[in-house]
Amino acid sequence: MVNSLDNNRIHQVVIVGGGFGGLYAAKTLAKTAVNVTLIDKRNFHLFQPLLYQVATGALSPADISSPLRSVLSKSKNTKVLLGEVNNIDPQAQKVIVGDEAIPYDTLIVATGAKHSYFGKDNWEEFAPGLKTVEDAIEMRRRIFMAFEAAEKETDPEKRRAWLTFVIVGGGPTGVELAGAIAELANQTLKEDFRNIDTSEAQILLLEGLDRILPPFAPELSQEAEASLTRLGVVVQTKTLVTNIENDIVTLKQGDEVKEIASKTVLWAAGVKASAMGKVLTERTAAECDRAGRVIVEPDLSIKGYPNIFVIGDLANFSHQNGKPLPGVAPVAKQEGEYVAELIQKRLVGQTLPAFAYVDRGSLAMIGQNSAVVDLGFLKLKGFFAWAFWLLIHIYFLIEFDNKLVVMIQWAWNYFTRNRGARLITGQESVTQLEISDRNTYYTSETNKQPVNV
Amino acid sequence: MVNSLDNNRIHQVVIVGGGFGGLYAAKTLAKTAVNVTLIDKRNFHLFQPLLYQVATGALSPADISSPLRSVLSKSKNTKVLLGEVNNIDPQAQKVIVGDEAIPYDTLIVATGAKHSYFGKDNWEEFAPGLKTVEDAIEMRRRIFMAFEAAEKETDPEKRRAWLTFVIVGGGPTGVELAGAIAELANQTLKEDFRNIDTSEAQILLLEGLDRILPPFAPELSQEAEASLTRLGVVVQTKTLVTNIENDIVTLKQGDEVKEIASKTVLWAAGVKASAMGKVLTERTAAECDRAGRVIVEPDLSIKGYPNIFVIGDLANFSHQNGKPLPGVAPVAKQEGEYVAELIQKRLVGQTLPAFAYVDRGSLAMIGQNSAVVDLGFLKLKGFFAWAFWLLIHIYFLIEFDNKLVVMIQWAWNYFTRNRGARLITGQESVTQLEISDRNTYYTSETNKQPVNV
Repeated sequence: MVNSLDNNRIHQVVIVGGGFGGLYAAKTLAKTAVNVTLIDKRNFHLFQPLLYQVATGALSPADISSPLRSVLSKSKNTKVLLGEVNNIDPQAQKVIVGDEAIPYDTLIVATGAKHSYFGKDNWEEFAPGLKTVEDAIEMRRRIFMAFEAAEKETDPEKRRAWLTFVIVGGGPTGVELAGAIAELANQTLKEDFRNIDTSEAQILLLEGLDRILPPFAPELSQEAEASLTRLGVVVQTKTLVTNIENDIVTLKQGDEVKEIASKTVLWAAGVKASAMGKVLTERTAAECDRAGRVIVEPDLSIKGYPNIFVIGDLANFSHQNGKPLPGVAPVAKQEGEYVAELIQKRLVGQTLPAFAYVDRGSLAMIGQNSAVVDLGFLKLKGFFAWAFWLLIHIYFLIEFDNKLVVMIQWAWNYFTRNRGARLITGQESVTQLEISDRNTYYTSETNKQPVNV
Repeated sequence: MVNSLDNNRIHQVVIVGGGFGGLYAAKTLAKTAVNVTLIDKRNFHLFQPLLYQVATGALSPADISSPLRSVLSKSKNTKVLLGEVNNIDPQAQKVIVGDEAIPYDTLIVATGAKHSYFGKDNWEEFAPGLKTVEDAIEMRRRIFMAFEAAEKETDPEKRRAWLTFVIVGGGPTGVELAGAIAELANQTLKEDFRNIDTSEAQILLLEGLDRILPPFAPELSQEAEASLTRLGVVVQTKTLVTNIENDIVTLKQGDEVKEIASKTVLWAAGVKASAMGKVLTERTAAECDRAGRVIVEPDLSIKGYPNIFVIGDLANFSHQNGKPLPGVAPVAKQEGEYVAELIQKRLVGQTLPAFAYVDRGSLAMIGQNSAVVDLGFLKLKGFFAWAFWLLIHIYFLIEFDNKLVVMIQWAWNYFTRNRGARLITGQESVTQLEISDRNTYYTSETNKQPVNV
């Protein structure tokens, strides 16, 4: 416990997870008289909000990733450990990484979330989600292989299924994916094929609620829908997906049931907490919500364990206005900074008031010159929203790592409407893949071994 | 056959392979009254000379790849077909892609080479080569994982094996890899680790002949060796590798036999022709050399088949000075252009003199501000050679595809000595990998399915 701190040795902070929450906590502690160990199973921080740009061939994975060691190379009190935490021992104050037990005085758990199929895990094979670099590469492969397969296909019905893209979930990721695929089909790829007209591709965006982008003001949801429609995306709200199997998506709209034949279904709907949520509930008195997120105290600690904090997408913090804070980067960032400051205060025998999230607004990109920005006091759409979106993302991208090049690449892409990173990779030979046989596809998260690709 | 051409229909040219040879042939035929079908198993052209920059984390795969469709989008007489040619029928004049038979009047085979272990294929598991994007990603993973493993390792002997990098083969790829790894260890990663001093890494470059860079003038080989030595690379010439197994490289230097413990052995030694060489010898009267390359006529056709051409790394063209032309990009490019021009001539009943390669010189990068350039009449070293190398590579990179960004990224990397693309990817979790157990490594070419990663 923090209070049982032996004054003769340096306070040990262990942070699990190098996403926005963990990394901002580590950065904030860089000049504090503590030792920090940041443990992550990857050697890089991923700027997840731009993962859809990798999935649609505009950026490379390295453009939106920063090696954790280089981000933290100047924080001499901080060690980075590449490894996966599989357990914790809150009594002995240790986290377990493989065979190793790493002692902590304060523990920050920030392992994030993964996508969830609401219990229908068999859908994943047909409708991959977008959380990791590997997910993005797999989505990219499916999107570009679909156009290749359509080019080869002579049966009009099958060709139509190859040229039908269904995006499930009308939040920011779904909107951004739909807009980017529409731009690919209508602009980038238009001159590249000889047998198909890529602009005949059907892009469907499905949302269960009555409007897309539910966190935004209703007029911005309407604006986003109008912009997507202009790009050729068919937006269907109040639409529930009841099954995804063998290239058929089954929908329910009111009492009507529809089937859509699509070879490329992309999942942007639900998320659930990562496995550390379960570990914490088993090893402490912590409780989880239905999505597996750990319910935290007003100071982001776990009940009965004031030296264990849970932040970011893994945490359910509902003290502010009764409903949990959303799983977005700014929440994780502010939580990481808050916990770091609370540790600093405690070291000198002080404390902090409860955590309070400052919502600076929401942004979503739709396409070239088109975005929506909701800052509460100010609502933007069209070109100004687009420029604002770009600036904000560049600002955060270059904060850790000087990703000036990304900015230039974007500027270039937006001028030339080019997406140069549209490689189909992950296998030596694409012809290994029976492209009409869905069962040979790589399901990105459930199995660690790609199947026949 | 070309001469049996039916004048009422358009001449069909089929090109197999979208490397330098195939792509330049297609580009040269863009405005000729022929139909061109370019078949490749990948959807992109790869700028192989820069693959080592991907393997060492300086560039992303997309930076050195151009989608074939976009390179050829304006060649309206050209179709790109994604697929792998598994056979040809020279009597019926067809190439076989899966179930499909594609007729040709003229066939250009340009499927290149892969690395060869001189019959010791079991070495590949321990010493991957560098021919594809996947190879480069695997090499990158091994290089950066080695530093991670060394950081964790407490046994000094094992740590030393993790920090020992052995590069087999002192040609341009080997030299460039060795130089880049030395820069990583001495500069880029120097501040990133807490338990190890990365500059203690041992980088060994092994060459069987009496000097590295044998195609260059001897004084440039000496200069390259001196530059590498300054970077901390140990260059060992007249050194034969007799075994690679279980993290031990066995060497023979004269009568002396040595064993080196190294967890990261990289293969930059031999190449052999791709599988199409064997298909051609089985289906035609073509003969192969020991490396499996097809021996071609003075006009690059196969004996008895004036309408089948073999170009690039797959061809053995020895008519110029008795020894085969080297497997480098400029040879493939000039051969592709020659065959395209010969086809144009034949269409109007003319012919061309025998192919003659114009050797414009050789280049190899060693490290920042250091390279060697041998233009025959002019030999450069040091900064001028380095700047020349950079300019030439940028010039060829932007020829197909406006890779202006790559240039800016390089400039940036060279100023900041940064290598931002040092992601360890290809698996969800690195801890899946028992890093001390070599058998779980992904062997990049022999098996299509990664094993346990």
